[in-house]
Amino acid sequence: MRISELSRRSGVATATIKYYLREGLLPPGRATAATQAEYGEAHVRRLRLIRALIGVRGLSVGAAKDVLDVISEGKSDTHELLGLVFGIWPSGDGGGKGTEEEGDGLGVDHLLAEMGWTVSEHNPAREVITRTLHTLNSLGVEYGWRELLPYAALAEQTATLDLDQLEGPDDPLEKAERAVLLTILLEPALLALRRLAQEAESTVRHRG
Amino acid sequence: MRISELSRRSGVATATIKYYLREGLLPPGRATAATQAEYGEAHVRRLRLIRALIGVRGLSVGAAKDVLDVISEGKSDTHELLGLVFGIWPSGDGGGKGTEEEGDGLGVDHLLAEMGWTVSEHNPAREVITRTLHTLNSLGVEYGWRELLPYAALAEQTATLDLDQLEGPDDPLEKAERAVLLTILLEPALLALRRLAQEAESTVRHRG
Repeated sequence: MRISELSRRSGVATATIKYYLREGLLPPGRATAATQAEYGEAHVRRLRLIRALIGVRGLSVGAAKDVLDVISEGKSDTHELLGLVFGIWPSGDGGGKGTEEEGDGLGVDHLLAEMGWTVSEHNPAREVITRTLHTLNSLGVEYGWRELLPYAALAEQTATLDLDQLEGPDDPLEKAERAVLLTILLEPALLALRRLAQEAESTVRHRG
Repeated sequence: MRISELSRRSGVATATIKYYLREGLLPPGRATAATQAEYGEAHVRRLRLIRALIGVRGLSVGAAKDVLDVISEGKSDTHELLGLVFGIWPSGDGGGKGTEEEGDGLGVDHLLAEMGWTVSEHNPAREVITRTLHTLNSLGVEYGWRELLPYAALAEQTATLDLDQLEGPDDPLEKAERAVLLTILLEPALLALRRLAQEAESTVRHRG
């Protein structure tokens, strides 16, 4: 199909598609003339994914490209692939810069040891937890890794559900795409479920 | 204390403090002269909270003011207070505009009924879930409210932990502040725990 048809099918403006092509988020079409190219179903699907990552999940173009690059590598090693996908943090939520306070009692290493979790040194989620605990403490809320343990136990059950959902497809590309969708895109819904459950639980406790 | 001392104690620049005073995020100090005011410990604490909401959690000044207004109302009805606090969604994550597709099989009403949750029509978390399911479906992932049920069961346990942590303080102001901190500020840490658990679970499954 031509770029105008690709635009109609994906709901993404032609100028935006050209921008994604220039930035390397979308692979080039098959050239049919000096200024014309032919696009396929893979382009429609890829554009929908880009729109979800940028438009829905709020990633920057650079962060979306990182995610897509991981998928495109098509690793045959499932664990390595999932590690790469899971290690990518939505833009702005995890800078990955170490803080000078790391190594004190707030560190996540105690938490990981207590849970028996093997986690890479580079997983940016470590820093997010350290930063949150520091913030709470600076606001006068005494909160440390021990308080997070019951939440970690629930996160472990959540992760089991997550991984179960990836057992289906054998194709590494498909598995990576599914991991991205069910990891990154599901995040707002999981927080929303918590909000709904909080309201429901509060109703039960205070309205008998 | 004078505004310069307040700036030193809170780590917030004097110009920024003046901006927060103008916008009504920070209550005025006690006037001691035409151009001078005296501030207290409550101001230091409030500034730290503002910094956490805006700087750490990424809320807009307007959204932070909404949160602070709820806290300042000092409702004596715990459930109403918590409802107000829990109903506030971080800026950008929930516009609250209804979609035209609402009411089809993806709606959260089935989920709420199945879980036995009583949730207000106005809770913006409803729309977040509907939107996420629509996005996944538009990307070719068959995913509906039934698939979210096991996650909802875990969210219910999470909410029980959350509410348990609010049982302590009797002072409504203190309770509201704690609810804000442990609801909004804890969100990135809960997602981070999921990421860590995913890596750990993947290691167990694929590395024996």
